[in-house]
Amino acid sequence: MVTAFLLIVCEPARIHEIGRALADVEGVAEVYTTTGSVDFIAVVRVADLDALATLVTERVGTLPGIVRTDTHLAMRSYGTTEMAAAYDIGLD
Amino acid sequence: MVTAFLLIVCEPARIHEIGRALADVEGVAEVYTTTGSVDFIAVVRVADLDALATLVTERVGTLPGIVRTDTHLAMRSYGTTEMAAAYDIGLD
Amino acid sequence: MVTAFLLIVCEPARIHEIGRALADVEGVAEVYTTTGSVDFIAVVRVADLDALATLVTERVGTLPGIVRTDTHLAMRSYGTTEMAAAYDIGLD
Amino acid sequence: MVTAFLLIVCEPARIHEIGRALADVEGVAEVYTTTGSVDFIAVVRVADLDALATLVTERVGTLPGIVRTDTHLAMRSYGTTEMAAAYDIGLD
Amino acid sequence: MVTAFLLIVCEPARIHEIGRALADVEGVAEVYTTTGSVDFIAVVRVADLDALATLVTERVGTLPGIVRTDTHLAMRSYGTTEMAAAYDIGLD
Amino acid sequence: MVTAFLLIVCEPARIHEIGRALADVEGVAEVYTTTGSVDFIAVVRVADLDALATLVTERVGTLPGIVRTDTHLAMRSYGTTEMAAAYDIGLD
Amino acid sequence: MVTAFLLIVCEPARIHEIGRALADVEGVAEVYTTTGSVDFIAVVRVADLDALATLVTERVGTLPGIVRTDTHLAMRSYGTTEMAAAYDIGLD
Amino acid sequence: MVTAFLLIVCEPARIHEIGRALADVEGVAEVYTTTGSVDFIAVVRVADLDALATLVTERVGTLPGIVRTDTHLAMRSYGTTEMAAAYDIGLD
Amino acid sequence: MVTAFLLIVCEPARIHEIGRALADVEGVAEVYTTTGSVDFIAVVRVADLDALATLVTERVGTLPGIVRTDTHLAMRSYGTTEMAAAYDIGLD
Amino acid sequence: MVTAFLLIVCEPARIHEIGRALADVEGVAEVYTTTGSVDFIAVVRVADLDALATLVTERVGTLPGIVRTDTHLAMRSYGTTEMAAAYDIGLD
Repeated sequence: MVTAFLLIVCEPARIHEIGRALADVEGVAEVYTTTGSVDFIAVVRVADLDALATLVTERVGTLPGIVRTDTHLAMRSYGTTEMAAAYDIGLD
Repeated sequence: MVTAFLLIVCEPARIHEIGRALADVEGVAEVYTTTGSVDFIAVVRVADLDALATLVTERVGTLPGIVRTDTHLAMRSYGTTEMAAAYDIGLD
Repeated sequence: MVTAFLLIVCEPARIHEIGRALADVEGVAEVYTTTGSVDFIAVVRVADLDALATLVTERVGTLPGIVRTDTHLAMRSYGTTEMAAAYDIGLD
Repeated sequence: MVTAFLLIVCEPARIHEIGRALADVEGVAEVYTTTGSVDFIAVVRVADLDALATLVTERVGTLPGIVRTDTHLAMRSYGTTEMAAAYDIGLD
Repeated sequence: MVTAFLLIVCEPARIHEIGRALADVEGVAEVYTTTGSVDFIAVVRVADLDALATLVTERVGTLPGIVRTDTHLAMRSYGTTEMAAAYDIGLD
Repeated sequence: MVTAFLLIVCEPARIHEIGRALADVEGVAEVYTTTGSVDFIAVVRVADLDALATLVTERVGTLPGIVRTDTHLAMRSYGTTEMAAAYDIGLD
Repeated sequence: MVTAFLLIVCEPARIHEIGRALADVEGVAEVYTTTGSVDFIAVVRVADLDALATLVTERVGTLPGIVRTDTHLAMRSYGTTEMAAAYDIGLD
Repeated sequence: MVTAFLLIVCEPARIHEIGRALADVEGVAEVYTTTGSVDFIAVVRVADLDALATLVTERVGTLPGIVRTDTHLAMRSYGTTEMAAAYDIGLD
Repeated sequence: MVTAFLLIVCEPARIHEIGRALADVEGVAEVYTTTGSVDFIAVVRVADLDALATLVTERVGTLPGIVRTDTHLAMRSYGTTEMAAAYDIGLD
Repeated sequence: MVTAFLLIVCEPARIHEIGRALADVEGVAEVYTTTGSVDFIAVVRVADLDALATLVTERVGTLPGIVRTDTHLAMRSYGTTEMAAAYDIGLD
């Protein structure tokens, strides 16, 4: 499973509707409006890199009002809690 | 409970040791080395804003080799999965 | 109570009307046009993070002419004066 | 009276001690560690521009560990609450 | 009297007409097209901060073709020549 | 197999020695000094994300003189030539 | 032969169609959607600098939806594998 | 004579036609499409600063499709070749 | 006569001493500590470009504690007041 | 012959000595201190890309006090004057 963080900027007037749309995208495990230089951070957990490409380019990028999406892919987990273990990234 | 994402840049030669140190910080639920313009993204879940301040300024900022920490705080969850519900942010 | 600073950039021709609109938003305690790289700094004091999300995404972001809003949330007050004490942030 | 917002970046390991030092600077009405691209936002209220210059260059800039201070000066208040009125900026 | 430097970016095709318009704004003492990352630097000398706010938001910002105005306010003069003395900033 | 592009900035005086060191890192298929805002672009082809993390944090980041490494991971290939096919990314 | 890396940003909604169009451009050896601050990295191998200029300005730049193209040209290869040797850059 | 370097960004689809238009501007001695963060670098040699202002604001800035022009003016030549001598900058 | 604006960043702890040193540099007509992203703006009026090069590289750049100097040269004055006329730039 | 523009930033106190050193580098046809965000622009004309790599990494990058070099390579000349013709880029 692949874990990625999407930092998303959108048109200011559409934050609320885009938040709801992002939550409905399959593979988006969590999505929050955040303080700081981006409008949303979405935590994505999908099967492989190809599924991530589909999510970023065909599901998120095509939502009306999206200005920019910057994807940070998790390479290795240093997490120690049970939850992190449950989502341990890998390519088995 | 408060959810925050810490985007962390560190000295290139110390990435590995800092990853392990971050995983040991209480309140850090997950931490990953990531592709892109930062070295780590840490998912933090703590009781309140004061605990977040303690974590950022006294636990993470003081690790040797940390160059910059940019904290994005979750204001509102649009998540729909059970896990997101379990970590629903709020100020109860 | 939660304290936040909103750094707001807007279309140059609409600064004056947006200043008046921002002052009418509930939760905006102070708002100033400022020198520097942003047009306004608004000091916001609201009950909790959910109220902050509502203010940023539904009240400020939807004002016509807003280009970008960067929210800096106060994590801990180091203030010493009586006024700061009166607005001490916390999650009681 | 002149109102200004100082956005301050400092060395990560010294955030806590600088927070306390900033709170002791005369003219600093409030100071917070904040989320986002800066470490502190200080709200400054002093008698005139010369006092602001003294505060920025001789009181804050000389604290050990300060990396950068970006001063945003309030030109005009659009505030409506009583507190804002009490601190109405001007040059009477 | 208050001294400020306005760094102004405008649409490339309108530089010439905006230069003439800026020169006609009351309070603009000097205005130049400059080399570098901005199109104009205007030296502004007005009575107080409120007059500066009026100039920036109502006179300059509303000119068609203005993209961005970044105001740098002089806090203290270190000038030594007679001319600087004549324009010494202050709040008398 | 995972394909990634590493954009690397190093101390100006050490470009030549770092180029040779990068070429010796297992997993670096190609490495070039390039024009533009970075000193090197390295094309990396490794077995999985964990191998990529090892390469970035333990092999490249620890070379003396490395200032910054920005990793762009290939999510999906649109290539059509035989060579691209030979290196088709995937998670088999 | 000349090797260059094109870092390409496009309108979010058109990533998928542009990926296919880029793969059809003669001289584009590989093209990937990538994580990070750009949408695509294209590896280009053409006969000389004039062919590169034609590719960048007449083939890629004119695709509808392209926002920005940043070309990094390989000056010298430090590669050691057979494949790199096969594509050794030069001006013979 | 005054020497200046104009770094020019334009709309991607118009690079070719703007290149030809720039070459026809009187005072433009050389103009190249370049790799890197700008589309063109033009070497300008004109009689004095006023002629440079005319070239930048009335000849180049008004070409359709120009997005931004950043002018770097040569203050002093350290050149040693005959050609540099022939174009030695100065204000005689 | 040539007019230029120097935007100067220096080490925070040395602002005061550098301000006094800048005021003593021949050719610096005015110098102010300013709000915003730079520490000083110096207005320079010298005989020609060569004198400007000497001032920037040999007088200002060599002051201990200077971090960066960004020179914006006035190409054309749009000023209308008597003072601007007195300092009209030109190359007579 | 290959034409390139090197935009060079150096330590402020060493501008003068670096200017003289750059002028002595074989392949540097012209070098100027310039206004704007870089300290020098060097016009380089060398035989091929390998010679450019040698110049950038072994001759310029190793000069003491160089902070950053950003190389913009000319891909195609749109020049029309005789001088441009004399230096027409190409790969014959």
